[in-house]
Amino acid sequence: VMIVSDETTESSEEDDVISPPGGKVIYMVSDGTGWTLEHAVNASLGQFEHCLVDRACAVNTHLFSGIDNFERVVGILKQAAKVGALLLYTLADPSMAESTQQACKLWGVPAVNILRPTTVAIASHLGVEPSGIPRSERNIPLSEEYFRRIEAIDFTIKQDDGALPQHLHRADIVLVGVSRTGKTPLSIYLAQKGYKVANVPIVMGVNLPRALFDMDHQEKVFGLTINPMVLHTIRKARAKTLGFDNEMKSTYSDMDHVRQELEHAGKIYARNPAWPIIEMTGKAIEETAAVIVRIYHDKKHKCSMPSISKRY
Amino acid sequence: VMIVSDETTESSEEDDVISPPGGKVIYMVSDGTGWTLEHAVNASLGQFEHCLVDRACAVNTHLFSGIDNFERVVGILKQAAKVGALLLYTLADPSMAESTQQACKLWGVPAVNILRPTTVAIASHLGVEPSGIPRSERNIPLSEEYFRRIEAIDFTIKQDDGALPQHLHRADIVLVGVSRTGKTPLSIYLAQKGYKVANVPIVMGVNLPRALFDMDHQEKVFGLTINPMVLHTIRKARAKTLGFDNEMKSTYSDMDHVRQELEHAGKIYARNPAWPIIEMTGKAIEETAAVIVRIYHDKKHKCSMPSISKRY
Ligand SMILES: Nc1ncnc2c1ncn2[C@@H]1O[C@H](COP(=O)(O)O)[C@@H](O)[C@H]1O
Ligand SMILES: Nc1ncnc2c1ncn2[C@@H]1O[C@H](COP(=O)(O)O)[C@@H](O)[C@H]1O
Ligand SMILES: [Mg+2]
Ligand SMILES: [Mg+2]
Repeated sequence: VMIVSDETTESSEEDDVISPPGGKVIYMVSDGTGWTLEHAVNASLGQFEHCLVDRACAVNTHLFSGIDNFERVVGILKQAAKVGALLLYTLADPSMAESTQQACKLWGVPAVNILRPTTVAIASHLGVEPSGIPRSERNIPLSEEYFRRIEAIDFTIKQDDGALPQHLHRADIVLVGVSRTGKTPLSIYLAQKGYKVANVPIVMGVNLPRALFDMDHQEKVFGLTINPMVLHTIRKARAKTLGFDNEMKSTYSDMDHVRQELEHAGKIYARNPAWPIIEMTGKAIEETAAVIVRIYHDKKHKCSMPSISKRY
Repeated sequence: VMIVSDETTESSEEDDVISPPGGKVIYMVSDGTGWTLEHAVNASLGQFEHCLVDRACAVNTHLFSGIDNFERVVGILKQAAKVGALLLYTLADPSMAESTQQACKLWGVPAVNILRPTTVAIASHLGVEPSGIPRSERNIPLSEEYFRRIEAIDFTIKQDDGALPQHLHRADIVLVGVSRTGKTPLSIYLAQKGYKVANVPIVMGVNLPRALFDMDHQEKVFGLTINPMVLHTIRKARAKTLGFDNEMKSTYSDMDHVRQELEHAGKIYARNPAWPIIEMTGKAIEETAAVIVRIYHDKKHKCSMPSISKRY
C-alpha cells in the first residue's frame, strides 16, 4: 500500500506531507544512498499492513540521502522535532552517529541507528574495528563482480520477450510463461543480482523455439504460472495502458482466452517435468526471484541445506 | 570485494565454504526473501573493507531464505554452532524469533535479529503492534505501485541504447553518455525504483536525436561522465568479452579515442547547461542512482530540504 508522493517536505502552503492529518512521519537519514534504510523500512512496514491497509494508520517517509556533515543532520533533526518524526538513520562516522543520538535525546526525537547492531556484531565476530568511513568517501574498484553484473544486465535486456533464441544456452536462467505473468520484471530483478536471464513468451498457436528444448540443463527453465482471475485483472489494466481497441482487447484480456492460454502453458509444463513451476499469484517480484534463486542454487549444489553463498 | 561463490554449504570433500582457512562465517536466516539481510550485510561489510580488501580477513556469507518453521531454524543453528558462525536473522513471528534467540544463547551462537530495533521503534511511534506474520504467508495486492513499476521497466527496456527517440518526452529521466559509462545498468536500476528512463548514446560523428533537444524539461536529461583512464579499462574488458577484432578494438578502446569521445561529450554538455552532470568514476550504480533521484526530486520540488517522500 505504498504511494510515492510527489509532494515536497517544505511547502509553506500545504504542510500535509510534513504533518498530514492523523499520519505519522518517519525521517530516514543516510550518509550514503539511503537504499538500506528504504529497504529495511519497507520490510518493517510490512509488519503494520493490518493497520496501513485501511488507512487506520498512515505513514509518510522522507529519505534524506548523502548527508555527510553534522550541520545538515541538525537541520533535519530540528524539522523532525517540529513534526514529531521518528528518525531512522545510517551514519558510518562514529562521532557523527554519537552526536546525532545525543541531539535526538536532547530534542526528544526517537531515533534508531539501524545498521549499528549488525556492524557491532560483525566487528566482534571478525575481531576488527569498523572503518567509520561512509561509502561516499570511497571509490568502488572495478571488480569482477561489477563486470559480471553489467554483463548480466546487458545479456538479459537483449534476451527479453523471446529475442535471440540462439543465445538461450548462454543464459543461467530461462523464464517461460504467457503474456503478463511477470517475465520481464522478474528477468530484470534477477539480472541485477548477476544472473543472465532470458525470457520466452508462450503464445497459443506459436511454437516455442526449438533451441529451448535442445539446450542442456533443462532444469534452468522456469515455467511461470498465475491464477486466471488475477491475470485477467492485470491484462485489463495493460490493455487500457496500451490503448488496445476493442477487438484486440477481447482476445487478450477475455477471461475465456486467459484460461485457455494458461491451460496451454500448463500442458507444455506437463510435457517438460524438468522445469520448476513458479507460482506468481499474490507474490511480489522479489519474492518469486528469491524462490528461483533458491531452486537454482539448490539444483546446482544438490545439498541438504540449500543456501546462497558469497565470499567477501 | 565480493565474489559469488559456486560452492555448497555442505560438501563432505571440501569443507572450505563452511569453515574456510582463516575465514569467518556469517549465516543469514529469513522467513522471507532474505534480500533485507543481504542488503544490510553488504552495507555493513563496507565498514570492513580495509580488512577484506587484502584478504587479511575473509568472510563467507550463507543466506537461508524462506525459513518458515522452527525445525529448519534449529537445523541451521546446529550447523552455525559447529562452524562458529555469526547468525543474522529476520523472523516476523515473535515466538519463532524468541525461540531462535534462546537456542542461540544455549548453543553459544552470537545472533542479531536485524530488523527488530526498526520494527520496535515503528511500533511505538505508530502505537500499533506488529502483525508478526511473515511476508510468505501474505498475498501482495495488485497495487498502483505494482503496475507503475512494471510499466517503468517495460518502458525503460524499450528505450535502451537510443531506441524510439519519439518517446523521449514520456521519460521521467533521460541518460546520455558515451559507450560504457553505465547508461544501461543505471537505467535499469532507476526503472526498478519506478522511474521511466530512456538512455541515448553519444557517438562521435552521429547526431543526437532532435527529439532530445526539442522536448520540454531539459533538466530531466543527465549527462554521464567518467575518468578516461577508467573508461579505457572498462572498454578493454568489454572488447575482450565481445571478441572484437583488433581494428574495432583499437577505435573503441584506444586511449586517444576514449579521450576524444569524452571531450566530444563534454562539449555537448557545455552547450546544454540545463543537464546535470553525473560523475560515474569510482561509484557503484546504486550510488549514482541515488544522486540522480535526489536531483530529480529536488528540481521538481525546489525545496530547501530535498528528500524523497513516500506515503504508506
Ligand atoms: N561499500 C561501502 N563502504 C563503506 N560504507 C558503506 C558501503 N556501503 C554502504 N556503506 C554504509 O552503510 C550505510 C548504508 O548505506 P546506504 O545504503 O548507501 O545508505 C551508510 O552509512 C554507508 O556509508
Ligand atoms: N510485505 C511484508 N509483509 C510482512 N512482512 C514482511 C513484508 N516484507 C518483508 N517482511 C518481513 O521482513 C523480513 C525481511 O524480509 P525479506 O527481505 O523478504 O527477507 C522478514 O521477516 C519478512 O517476513
Ligand atoms: Mg515482457
Ligand atoms: Mg548500454
